[in-house]
Amino acid sequence: MIGHGFMGAAHSQGWRVAPRFFDLPLEPEMAVLVGRNAAGAEASARKWGWDESATDWREVIARDDIDVVDVVTPGDTHAEIAIAALEAGKHVLCEKPLANTVEEAERMAAAAAAAAERGIRSMVGFTYRRVPATTFARDLVAEGRLGEIRQVRAEYLQDWLMDAEAPLTWRMQKDRAGSGALGDIGAHAVDLTEYITGQRVTTVSGIIETLVEERPLLGEGSGLSGTATSERGKVTVDDIALFTGRLESGALASFEATRFRTGRKNALRIEISGSKGALAFDLERLNELEFYDATLPATGLGFQRILVTESDHPYMGPWWPTGHMLGYEHGFSHQVYDFVTAIDEGTQPRPSFEDGLHVQRVLEAVERSSASGSAWIATGD
Amino acid sequence: MIGHGFMGAAHSQGWRVAPRFFDLPLEPEMAVLVGRNAAGAEASARKWGWDESATDWREVIARDDIDVVDVVTPGDTHAEIAIAALEAGKHVLCEKPLANTVEEAERMAAAAAAAAERGIRSMVGFTYRRVPATTFARDLVAEGRLGEIRQVRAEYLQDWLMDAEAPLTWRMQKDRAGSGALGDIGAHAVDLTEYITGQRVTTVSGIIETLVEERPLLGEGSGLSGTATSERGKVTVDDIALFTGRLESGALASFEATRFRTGRKNALRIEISGSKGALAFDLERLNELEFYDATLPATGLGFQRILVTESDHPYMGPWWPTGHMLGYEHGFSHQVYDFVTAIDEGTQPRPSFEDGLHVQRVLEAVERSSASGSAWIATGD
Amino acid sequence: MIGHGFMGAAHSQGWRVAPRFFDLPLEPEMAVLVGRNAAGAEASARKWGWDESATDWREVIARDDIDVVDVVTPGDTHAEIAIAALEAGKHVLCEKPLANTVEEAERMAAAAAAAAERGIRSMVGFTYRRVPATTFARDLVAEGRLGEIRQVRAEYLQDWLMDAEAPLTWRMQKDRAGSGALGDIGAHAVDLTEYITGQRVTTVSGIIETLVEERPLLGEGSGLSGTATSERGKVTVDDIALFTGRLESGALASFEATRFRTGRKNALRIEISGSKGALAFDLERLNELEFYDATLPATGLGFQRILVTESDHPYMGPWWPTGHMLGYEHGFSHQVYDFVTAIDEGTQPRPSFEDGLHVQRVLEAVERSSASGSAWIATGD
Amino acid sequence: MIGHGFMGAAHSQGWRVAPRFFDLPLEPEMAVLVGRNAAGAEASARKWGWDESATDWREVIARDDIDVVDVVTPGDTHAEIAIAALEAGKHVLCEKPLANTVEEAERMAAAAAAAAERGIRSMVGFTYRRVPATTFARDLVAEGRLGEIRQVRAEYLQDWLMDAEAPLTWRMQKDRAGSGALGDIGAHAVDLTEYITGQRVTTVSGIIETLVEERPLLGEGSGLSGTATSERGKVTVDDIALFTGRLESGALASFEATRFRTGRKNALRIEISGSKGALAFDLERLNELEFYDATLPATGLGFQRILVTESDHPYMGPWWPTGHMLGYEHGFSHQVYDFVTAIDEGTQPRPSFEDGLHVQRVLEAVERSSASGSAWIATGD
Repeated sequence: MIGHGFMGAAHSQGWRVAPRFFDLPLEPEMAVLVGRNAAGAEASARKWGWDESATDWREVIARDDIDVVDVVTPGDTHAEIAIAALEAGKHVLCEKPLANTVEEAERMAAAAAAAAERGIRSMVGFTYRRVPATTFARDLVAEGRLGEIRQVRAEYLQDWLMDAEAPLTWRMQKDRAGSGALGDIGAHAVDLTEYITGQRVTTVSGIIETLVEERPLLGEGSGLSGTATSERGKVTVDDIALFTGRLESGALASFEATRFRTGRKNALRIEISGSKGALAFDLERLNELEFYDATLPATGLGFQRILVTESDHPYMGPWWPTGHMLGYEHGFSHQVYDFVTAIDEGTQPRPSFEDGLHVQRVLEAVERSSASGSAWIATGD
Repeated sequence: MIGHGFMGAAHSQGWRVAPRFFDLPLEPEMAVLVGRNAAGAEASARKWGWDESATDWREVIARDDIDVVDVVTPGDTHAEIAIAALEAGKHVLCEKPLANTVEEAERMAAAAAAAAERGIRSMVGFTYRRVPATTFARDLVAEGRLGEIRQVRAEYLQDWLMDAEAPLTWRMQKDRAGSGALGDIGAHAVDLTEYITGQRVTTVSGIIETLVEERPLLGEGSGLSGTATSERGKVTVDDIALFTGRLESGALASFEATRFRTGRKNALRIEISGSKGALAFDLERLNELEFYDATLPATGLGFQRILVTESDHPYMGPWWPTGHMLGYEHGFSHQVYDFVTAIDEGTQPRPSFEDGLHVQRVLEAVERSSASGSAWIATGD
Repeated sequence: MIGHGFMGAAHSQGWRVAPRFFDLPLEPEMAVLVGRNAAGAEASARKWGWDESATDWREVIARDDIDVVDVVTPGDTHAEIAIAALEAGKHVLCEKPLANTVEEAERMAAAAAAAAERGIRSMVGFTYRRVPATTFARDLVAEGRLGEIRQVRAEYLQDWLMDAEAPLTWRMQKDRAGSGALGDIGAHAVDLTEYITGQRVTTVSGIIETLVEERPLLGEGSGLSGTATSERGKVTVDDIALFTGRLESGALASFEATRFRTGRKNALRIEISGSKGALAFDLERLNELEFYDATLPATGLGFQRILVTESDHPYMGPWWPTGHMLGYEHGFSHQVYDFVTAIDEGTQPRPSFEDGLHVQRVLEAVERSSASGSAWIATGD
Repeated sequence: MIGHGFMGAAHSQGWRVAPRFFDLPLEPEMAVLVGRNAAGAEASARKWGWDESATDWREVIARDDIDVVDVVTPGDTHAEIAIAALEAGKHVLCEKPLANTVEEAERMAAAAAAAAERGIRSMVGFTYRRVPATTFARDLVAEGRLGEIRQVRAEYLQDWLMDAEAPLTWRMQKDRAGSGALGDIGAHAVDLTEYITGQRVTTVSGIIETLVEERPLLGEGSGLSGTATSERGKVTVDDIALFTGRLESGALASFEATRFRTGRKNALRIEISGSKGALAFDLERLNELEFYDATLPATGLGFQRILVTESDHPYMGPWWPTGHMLGYEHGFSHQVYDFVTAIDEGTQPRPSFEDGLHVQRVLEAVERSSASGSAWIATGD
């Protein structure tokens, strides 16, 4: 595993826990954790249960006893590491967003395609596809329970930047993060829409905006923690992204990604309206899916709050009895299960780098639309 | 109409509005409002649109041009007025609870039965039966959508007495109100249970309790308004009633009526659990009914929030388009509609005085149970 | 009152009920109901309690015993009637949207301004301003409880056209209705945003779209009822409107008005995010307001479900005790109260025709933006 | 760890994960898993990551390299194992309910007290105390935010036995499970009430009842899985328990534990009403706590939905950023953290065996009350 921030903790928990609940066809070993800072990497490795730590990812990738590389660094390093790993014949799991630019993402997708020819697998980490409720939502759409899709509303609402004095971290710097709310959380809204509907966003019109343009610099670098100083730095990414897209079928989807929706902590929500039914999901209540069956008699219509905790719900079998809740990190175990299974079976795991590239194209199209007065921009598919 | 407190305003609105939306077979005229205080009665009559006012209900009952008597006084006067009105050949609508004691209620039921022989109708005002959602709930049970009823939970939660300095009004005096939370709101919980399930409560065990035993007396009598004085009077009714009952089928029902559930303003709630489904209702969201269909496949189970505003829902046809909400007082229009229709058709409107008597028996059994260490007491049916 | 459709019933209820609960400085008399069809107008007048009916609104406007004209016809006749009434010296209450075009609305606003000089009052019927929860929301913003407004999300979601075989009524014809979801319900979302924030929308970018382009014609005209025929007519208005706007302060507001959000019956929702707090309202739960106080300590943060039924909440004093719900039509009583009070006091009631004109400008700007590839269009203020 | 059913999986996850997130003062090693069936124990040990497996718990307890014994067997074996382990000088964590009878629990509490003199720690596994929201609730009560407690409602609602053909397992057999809904889930409702309020239940009145008296026997013993046969066995425990209790302060608390509340999967709910505020919790939404602050102005009152995911909320610091949810099994990590910390610090962890004994007394008092016509029975404290 390359990287050891917040995502490092989450991925480690996935690798650790998945084999204890799921019947994996292969037994993953948590071999090496790589970080630039030797002491920090060593501490994280010990804490999270990796056998050893290292500081040079190239050396690790070159090792024969490494089969899988898990990339959890900031987006600006994804392309270099993932491509090198694929070329070294390692299966690669790469955190989202796939890259910071379409150009990088294209090179990664090409490398993934080439690697796939040699039986090397790659996958991008949109874990919110692996919440049982969202997977179940996808199944309901695929079974036709919604009929023809008429509209989609997808939003990812947070408020952690509403304090204008919140310090400047790498997530607010374009060269590190690529974009702001758009790429960090809007990417999830786009991916989830495409995943559940089974349709891609083909064209977009929208606006991105930075509300707080300068923030206090952190004393000790650009980590997630650290004390704010009196110096200020420029926020070079968006705080808010509002955009409308069209799906392949022509249906309209409206999107919002924001770090300024006061009181909303982690509200990735999607509502899909179809000719036969509707679905609504909110990550703040991740064990629930709301389903509306429009084919019932008029007096019996209503959104149904399904607790997605039955053993027959996706991924739920190996966990707890009905009514016992999953949390945020369970999706990382599901991700490990799917990835390892695909490696064993020799199938292409999804979301593929190609899927990740497409999301990147949508994000870039939003930025271009915003720069040209919200003109409609094709996503190039 | 005899009486002109809070219920007077609500009943007046029912008489005024019902003919404007419903096709009534007879045209009610708002003739005389009766109150002990001439000026007050006159002011209320003018405000609420009654043709005249009077102070002596006996005189009014004797008038030939009066066909219907609507009794909205405190419970201690119900028996005398209603029996006199029935004997004078007037149809009687009487606010709940029917009376303050079983003995009074028995006499009223007997008078109602005798009057019915002469074509005179009587009804008791449990208006929460006439919220579209509760009537619809009754229909679902009657259609067998819940299967065999296994359990009932009924509660009526308020908090208006949580302030120990809230003044003493007639609702806290046993000689006027009969009982406290038990009769005022617990009566609704019992009636709604019996109405929706179609079963009577046959035996009960429970406890009633007064949390604040003395409260400030009001300066100008025992009305609902007025300024508290420094003198204190004794609260002679219960603040809380907790009891368990059995329905005719043997199913257990648990009840709570309280004026001390902090933050709950008017939460009459009922949940009915059956072998094929369940229902949940909350008066604080009176346009909604939650329905759980246990016959669906396991992955598709969940409480469904039905907006009970379709034109095919009970009472909804003459009101607004789908999704337009009703409020508290609409039940009073529905009550007028049902009562007038029954008078015209010569049928027995429900809840009858007999129904009201039964609720009274349940309340009295709860008081007796409480007085004898929560022993189980039959309701005498 | 000119007109007697759905809005006629609602306005009649307002005129009938307001004097029974509120202390009006003047006593309204329900004099004449005007409709093109003599029999229909007479039936409605009798049903709703108007003293007489008439077919020629010009004659009625000319009568000396008429002081107030209430216009509840479709939008294409508003300008003619309202201007004539104002010129005849009558106070005018006009249903929303003020008109079908900006040009008409401008003439109406000019007529209103001229009439105001002569003491004649005019008001437009955005009744959702008069739900106690929305008025209370406005108060909270005005008191600074939200701090600086950062973002607004306003949506009005319905699904009554999701059936492609739902018949073509006047609401789907541009010459009668002006626009579709945009003007019918989007107008409410815009007005409510401007009302609660106290800021106008200055520029917009968006798209409107018709999902079902042909629908069955009705047999007997274009009323709301009637049987669909096998002939089809063209839908000339939008089904969906998605747009983004800027408020005067620069804050972004995103809007959605749609008749295709499956399962949403009448969901006018608004969420306002500020630097110190946030507000959320949903018309499907109209007695509730959610408030988030961001100034509380971190562990105590959360949206608070306020039951807006306290006697100190706006408009609530004369109604029922705490916890007793209001319904859809109570707003019409509040409207009558405010309008009559303004007439008596000689003040300008809001929303004024000027306010209505502004909403019309926003709607037109959305249509123009949609026609020009979602380009940003100023609303002309 | 002795036992390897559902609780074995949950406890294993606790031991495995706690050290990866929390800074434990001691490093737990997952040494031996004990089960009666050698193959089954070995499979579970391998699956869950225990170093070895064994079949004789007495041998394991005698080993010098074992410091802690975690008892997750059915209740009928708790006393024998826990007492032996304490006498052998091992720290003991014992699943709830502490025992099947008061007599057993008394012996266990005595053994725990004796062991404590020698520095040996013991704790009972009421993990729902360790959901951040319930711990936070306890803190709010302790800080006086609720004022004087007036009423408690605690219920644990499930529906997994509503199918009368659900097979007979050990949880429905009195000799194995002690009691049914009462001990399995009612025990949690009692413990949570006592934990959050800081008060014990001193006396109870109630009823327990078995709705389905015979169920299909399982082919292969009494495990949780297995196929039902055509033979039937007697259900010897309760399906429903309804009871009322008094807290030390005199406040009334009403309880319900049931496996027949259709549609409720795992709804452990508690609402506490006090003179200054109220709290409501529902395990089906375990990341949320509702708090009502009655000291706010009347117009600003309302239950606040607090997302208990801030780093300053109990136990949350080492987990994820704000708004990222915990699931069911996180409580087991918190339990390990608290237990290991108490062992290291030499303090008495809570809930102690004494606490567990008290809950057992309450359960027994409910059974006795039910057997004597719901008479009030003191819990003997």
